[in-house]
Amino acid sequence: MSRIDVAVLVGSLRRGSFNRQLADALPALAPPDFSFHRVEIGDLPLYNQDDDEHQAEPVRRMKREIAEADALLFVTPEYNRSVPGVLKNAIDHASRPHGQNVWAGKPAGVLGVSPGAVGTAVAQGHLRSILAVLDVHVQGQPEAYLQLREGMFDEDGQIGEASRPFLQRWMDGYVEWVTKGMVLREHAAKNGAGPTTT
Amino acid sequence: MSRIDVAVLVGSLRRGSFNRQLADALPALAPPDFSFHRVEIGDLPLYNQDDDEHQAEPVRRMKREIAEADALLFVTPEYNRSVPGVLKNAIDHASRPHGQNVWAGKPAGVLGVSPGAVGTAVAQGHLRSILAVLDVHVQGQPEAYLQLREGMFDEDGQIGEASRPFLQRWMDGYVEWVTKGMVLREHAAKNGAGPTTT
Amino acid sequence: MSRIDVAVLVGSLRRGSFNRQLADALPALAPPDFSFHRVEIGDLPLYNQDDDEHQAEPVRRMKREIAEADALLFVTPEYNRSVPGVLKNAIDHASRPHGQNVWAGKPAGVLGVSPGAVGTAVAQGHLRSILAVLDVHVQGQPEAYLQLREGMFDEDGQIGEASRPFLQRWMDGYVEWVTKGMVLREHAAKNGAGPTTT
Amino acid sequence: MSRIDVAVLVGSLRRGSFNRQLADALPALAPPDFSFHRVEIGDLPLYNQDDDEHQAEPVRRMKREIAEADALLFVTPEYNRSVPGVLKNAIDHASRPHGQNVWAGKPAGVLGVSPGAVGTAVAQGHLRSILAVLDVHVQGQPEAYLQLREGMFDEDGQIGEASRPFLQRWMDGYVEWVTKGMVLREHAAKNGAGPTTT
Repeated sequence: MSRIDVAVLVGSLRRGSFNRQLADALPALAPPDFSFHRVEIGDLPLYNQDDDEHQAEPVRRMKREIAEADALLFVTPEYNRSVPGVLKNAIDHASRPHGQNVWAGKPAGVLGVSPGAVGTAVAQGHLRSILAVLDVHVQGQPEAYLQLREGMFDEDGQIGEASRPFLQRWMDGYVEWVTKGMVLREHAAKNGAGPTTT
Repeated sequence: MSRIDVAVLVGSLRRGSFNRQLADALPALAPPDFSFHRVEIGDLPLYNQDDDEHQAEPVRRMKREIAEADALLFVTPEYNRSVPGVLKNAIDHASRPHGQNVWAGKPAGVLGVSPGAVGTAVAQGHLRSILAVLDVHVQGQPEAYLQLREGMFDEDGQIGEASRPFLQRWMDGYVEWVTKGMVLREHAAKNGAGPTTT
Repeated sequence: MSRIDVAVLVGSLRRGSFNRQLADALPALAPPDFSFHRVEIGDLPLYNQDDDEHQAEPVRRMKREIAEADALLFVTPEYNRSVPGVLKNAIDHASRPHGQNVWAGKPAGVLGVSPGAVGTAVAQGHLRSILAVLDVHVQGQPEAYLQLREGMFDEDGQIGEASRPFLQRWMDGYVEWVTKGMVLREHAAKNGAGPTTT
Repeated sequence: MSRIDVAVLVGSLRRGSFNRQLADALPALAPPDFSFHRVEIGDLPLYNQDDDEHQAEPVRRMKREIAEADALLFVTPEYNRSVPGVLKNAIDHASRPHGQNVWAGKPAGVLGVSPGAVGTAVAQGHLRSILAVLDVHVQGQPEAYLQLREGMFDEDGQIGEASRPFLQRWMDGYVEWVTKGMVLREHAAKNGAGPTTT
């Protein structure tokens, strides 16, 4: 199978964000044919429907990156028991204008880390139901609601020993999930039908 | 492709339930190789973890029916802006004991009808996030939040002319979604891997 | 102020349920004018709208207990990232028939304990939005998503030293919240208006 | 009772937004001692935790307006079955830095209008659970999930005859809810305790 491009969306703009660190460290756990790149969302304007017919350059750039990706990876904190506004703003942009939802039909995984024990479970619940109606196919299991711990990252910013077994298992599930999406796409290409239900 | 068995779960026990009517009328819109049967959930006890090691006969019967099905169809009203307790009770039973979740890996569709305009959108949102963590693969689009209308059903209880185009489109999407699940299962069988990510 | 009666709803039927233990231990942290009693929900039938005009005796008994209570306390685990079916079933019963929702206008608190780190945050999110539309006035802060730990309960089943400061702070918040509800009720009684917005 | 200041938050930036129209027309249904003003959220930057200690001027301006308000009114569309990112971004800003959540303790109402039949019920469900943990006291009933209809607004942009009875009933409920919040505040002022549980 050829290279699989994964667009990575991080829900925090903070420079030292743990979720950004996690997003940067995860690719080392994936097979070599998986290629990850982070999609910038911090330069987007606030979504305004009046601009649907002439979306700003950062919006068009983001939509292109998502459209070209084979799969999606969301790595996000929880803000006020829901999806950060900054991430939801990006989701809203890329779903518009009506009929030009670039998220549709892509396989995706969701995870997140937070300093608190409660973690990111409520935000992920909201995010899963949002992505479902956008026709994104989100991996169900394994889930990953990570609490930041000593040893999660090593000195080089890679996944530390303490977290590696859990995150490797998560990544294996993600890879299997995305691979299924690729199987379907190839099957559809051979059989003359589009890869998504839309 | 051989016959595809769909287990249908209805969220209301009311004898004249519109959702039950809808569940009974939908199969006529599906291709002949799709076979639907309604799974009884009205005879289940209230879930009690103490019974996990010796589940009651109706629970084992329901779990068997779900385990044997190729796909799932949820047709449910909204009670108090969420999933009816009676349906959530069935979901809880069939997810237990730990490690014996019979829902996992099955493709599913969700829809519902209600007399009110708001319909069943909030309940479906909760249901989608519940099914996601149970590793059920729920169809994202098209969505179907139906408001009961004159002419939805004809005199014979079949889908009426007014609703037929919308529901046929929904069913076509569902059939495509389930068929993808079958493709993956066959692909996995040929390639020696299990059909689910668990 | 006279005695304040609190109806306690526990979301698990398991005999040794940690949430039931918590529900039984919490009253010791409340002032003496607060009186708690657990409302049985394990003997309810599955909700069926056909029975709305002749609700079963356990349903009428439960509705009486809730109607007579000054305040509500929900102590519940999370089942499959949502409210347990058994608790939702009780909520559905007591909200019916239409126009006879006995939950309306009561002050309430929500908390829960679970063995896993993720705790009960997602279930509480769903529960809060359900209770909101039932016109229950749910305490916002402090939240309590407890993970079961060594020392949470002492040998006599009381709140242990490790958990006491956190839970005492939660209870103080709850008592203040309920007391506000009482202030409003007395104010309304003096000014000739009903205590709820319905 | 003296004048009650209501801060109005609109979830859409579109110039001709129906929700903005609704927000502008609703005050005519309120008693004369209620004063509404719309809080601008379209000039906020995307939330970035790195800026917590030196929030941008539009953020400080918005937080001041919210802090000074006696009550809140959220009028919002639904974007992708959740709260618009632009509104969530404003909510995130005003909840920060940690310990300086200006939303806490304020009475609030939530409503929204949309062209589609499904309306804004799912977004309101997410919004209610977000506001709950921010310690905002959200009115439960009556709910208002409005579908845009001919005649909702008259030629002068006021609430039209068709929608007036429903919206007047909603406003009466809102006024009663906010008034209760004022009663509590006065009671607390007389009794030496803060108006919120925080």
